[in-house]
Amino acid sequence: MKLKVKDMDIATGGELIALINSHDASMLDLHAHDRIIIRKGRRNETAIIDIAQSSKATPKGSIGLFEEVLKSLKAERDDIVTIRLAKKPRSIDFIKKKLDGKTLTKFEIEQIVWDIVYNKLNNIELTYFVSACYTNIMTLKETAILTKAMAEFGDTLKLDAARVIDKHCIGGVPGNRTTMICVPIIAAAGLKIPKTSSRSITSPAGTADTMEVLCNIAVPIKKMKNIVNKINGCIVWGGALNLAPSDDKIIRVERPLSIDAESQLIASIMAKKQSVSSTHILIDIPTGPGSKIPKKSDALILKEKFEQIGAVLKKQVKVIITDGSQPIGNGIGPGLEARDVLWLLEGDDRMPLDLRQKSVLMAGYMLELAGKSKPGFGYKKALSILESGEAHKKMLEIIKEQGIRINKSEDIPMGKYKYDYRASKKGRISHIDNFSITRIARIAGAPLDHAAGIYLYKHKRDRVKKGDKIFTIYSESREKLKNSLEELKRMQPFIIK
Amino acid sequence: MKLKVKDMDIATGGELIALINSHDASMLDLHAHDRIIIRKGRRNETAIIDIAQSSKATPKGSIGLFEEVLKSLKAERDDIVTIRLAKKPRSIDFIKKKLDGKTLTKFEIEQIVWDIVYNKLNNIELTYFVSACYTNIMTLKETAILTKAMAEFGDTLKLDAARVIDKHCIGGVPGNRTTMICVPIIAAAGLKIPKTSSRSITSPAGTADTMEVLCNIAVPIKKMKNIVNKINGCIVWGGALNLAPSDDKIIRVERPLSIDAESQLIASIMAKKQSVSSTHILIDIPTGPGSKIPKKSDALILKEKFEQIGAVLKKQVKVIITDGSQPIGNGIGPGLEARDVLWLLEGDDRMPLDLRQKSVLMAGYMLELAGKSKPGFGYKKALSILESGEAHKKMLEIIKEQGIRINKSEDIPMGKYKYDYRASKKGRISHIDNFSITRIARIAGAPLDHAAGIYLYKHKRDRVKKGDKIFTIYSESREKLKNSLEELKRMQPFIIK
Repeated sequence: MKLKVKDMDIATGGELIALINSHDASMLDLHAHDRIIIRKGRRNETAIIDIAQSSKATPKGSIGLFEEVLKSLKAERDDIVTIRLAKKPRSIDFIKKKLDGKTLTKFEIEQIVWDIVYNKLNNIELTYFVSACYTNIMTLKETAILTKAMAEFGDTLKLDAARVIDKHCIGGVPGNRTTMICVPIIAAAGLKIPKTSSRSITSPAGTADTMEVLCNIAVPIKKMKNIVNKINGCIVWGGALNLAPSDDKIIRVERPLSIDAESQLIASIMAKKQSVSSTHILIDIPTGPGSKIPKKSDALILKEKFEQIGAVLKKQVKVIITDGSQPIGNGIGPGLEARDVLWLLEGDDRMPLDLRQKSVLMAGYMLELAGKSKPGFGYKKALSILESGEAHKKMLEIIKEQGIRINKSEDIPMGKYKYDYRASKKGRISHIDNFSITRIARIAGAPLDHAAGIYLYKHKRDRVKKGDKIFTIYSESREKLKNSLEELKRMQPFIIK
Repeated sequence: MKLKVKDMDIATGGELIALINSHDASMLDLHAHDRIIIRKGRRNETAIIDIAQSSKATPKGSIGLFEEVLKSLKAERDDIVTIRLAKKPRSIDFIKKKLDGKTLTKFEIEQIVWDIVYNKLNNIELTYFVSACYTNIMTLKETAILTKAMAEFGDTLKLDAARVIDKHCIGGVPGNRTTMICVPIIAAAGLKIPKTSSRSITSPAGTADTMEVLCNIAVPIKKMKNIVNKINGCIVWGGALNLAPSDDKIIRVERPLSIDAESQLIASIMAKKQSVSSTHILIDIPTGPGSKIPKKSDALILKEKFEQIGAVLKKQVKVIITDGSQPIGNGIGPGLEARDVLWLLEGDDRMPLDLRQKSVLMAGYMLELAGKSKPGFGYKKALSILESGEAHKKMLEIIKEQGIRINKSEDIPMGKYKYDYRASKKGRISHIDNFSITRIARIAGAPLDHAAGIYLYKHKRDRVKKGDKIFTIYSESREKLKNSLEELKRMQPFIIK
């Protein structure tokens, strides 16, 4: 059947959707959720159909294509396409198999990952896969195959180095910008560390958002390789690369229930490491209320699994469990966090000591893991690289190589609208609510507005007098500041006892 | 935030979707899949948001509403609505709990069903629920609670009768219109049988589609009650009633993987029976290749579960396992199947004997189950009601009460375009492929075109000579007949050995 293209101007963020008229659908006996193959010239793409109820959205003889389909077919309004019923992807049978509690073969796992990468599965099918792996936990062998497949169906970075260092934090803690301290220390120590980071999804800033305040982060893979070969390290945005692309699609269906199918969490992290050929990896699992893995017992189980998969993949993996019960660092939001990082590297008195302590500890472990320090001497070595200014110098090189924006803490702008939140009574801070801090900073504009966020003057266990400044909200717009203050009224970010 | 309504003219068939501009989304820190409460005057509805990538679909300051949301809010184009972030439904935590293998309480199951009925869950969340119940099979108690909740959150029919008879077939077999023979027999025997049936989803005709050839099937619940009180029986379309409405929504996410979470299958069937206050229920599980439950061992497990749930719900349930390996009856498609049924009731020589045999057997079991016949004498009694013409008379009453269209077999029109499929060689028919028969009949126009479908002259194990007519395809349009012949070329509906 030949149909004329209508540009629906709707993006799903993944699923390939085409909308057809109910009359045309009945001619081909097509139903909502059926798959069709759409052909335009020599290109073709498989899409999932929705049925238009009247002819207003898609008149008879036309087909409404969502952004992802238009892009894949390089189709435009009024192009002519042909459609026919497509078979269900083979991986549906394999997903069913996993749901039935059986173990998948290499071929089956690879087919599933391929179908995910090329958007052949709809959200419902993908959810069954995540759900299947959640309830019927993958074996170590399956997880290793999944990890490799996720890395393989995507771009990879190969380096001529025996040791390639990497780190990962399970996340969920505002601030916590250890990567931007650790990477320059490790690179200054002479080790390769091709670090990819993500933007924030639900937090006030990701490492990529924070690094973006200082320099370009969308670095093509070839340039990334050149930078690492030249100066040992980089901090780039993984989203601009095509590393383990199935990962993002899996995460999208995990979000509604906030579940982390353990095997997928592990495979997702390890696949990104596999993509950049990392050999020595430090993983940080923050625990405590408000973090992603609140219970220490769960963190310990996860730690063991990471060590096991490391062994199977022939990688040196060290896992540390840290305190994730409050923000780390004082700035929350891209600009504020970037300023903390630069203060720390510059040796400015205003540096956040908790972030410094944690970052040096982690860098120390990484040096020991890679054999650059004897066990027990990593911390000292990392500290000396930081205090000597070598780490700062390395960071300036990285900023320059990636494409400089700002490289001095004093040049980072702060939002011009602000509000000081003060202590309502005297006492000791017994609790800081990560969720409230995050929500307020985001409503104030973070991470899209780099100069928006929250600056904390106090941390847990600090004593305050009535009227003491506890934090300042920064925003780039009067309206967003107002919105965040309205949100603040409903929240209890700090508890003073 | 105030927004102007745009009518997107897209129906999802369930999910409540609103499309907002990316600028407006960032102002409220909203993301794809977040929930918002949309308020128009005193009405409000919770919808899931998609983000428009450009301002063409939904300009800044506007909100694109899909059909389901427009209907719920009684909103029209250019109406002004306000939106705010909504909390996630409570049932999400309970779904997570089930996914973690725990047993749900009555309160939790009821909350889930309520959220399903009122479209508070998106497809991903609903899929997690189905998946959770599939892998962590519900206990008998949970299934009973689910059944009752599904019936409770919907309309119900109460009858003043000690015994209310019902039947259900698990489906998957073309033809197989036993309901239209059994109901008049049972009603003629003096028993109440308020039968609701469904339209076809993937088959060439459902009982509702077939009954619709003869009379009106969209009967409001009050009228349905009056008919049953007056003449004992009816055959109406369940889709026009609001019985156990959560069921259809669950089935929608089961389709992509063709899974039947056992507890949901059972609850789904029993909930519809509970809604019409049935007390004595016969369930038919056809097995064999091409049927819904191909393996007899699975059918036996299911049989036991139905009997157990029947005991918990204090209903008399009898389950029979029948041959589902080939179509039952000769006509496939609404008009053709309705003609088979009337021939059978009229005592016409052209009646399909396999359908007659099965229907009388089933009606016999129902009479025995309800205590109208002694064990072993039901078949004989059912046959005498059929042969005496009482069943035919009762069917004419039902047709009249529901609103007559056609009540004589000779008045049923057949598609004017037809094609005879003939044997390519001499031999014995070793296999009939339910799937091919279904597909060809549907492409020819069934079930929407009542006069379209297939008429079978031969069944399994019949001997044929080369050139013998095996079946005729009927269609109302030359184009659809052509399409079905193209499909036929790719299929092998009959195997002759």
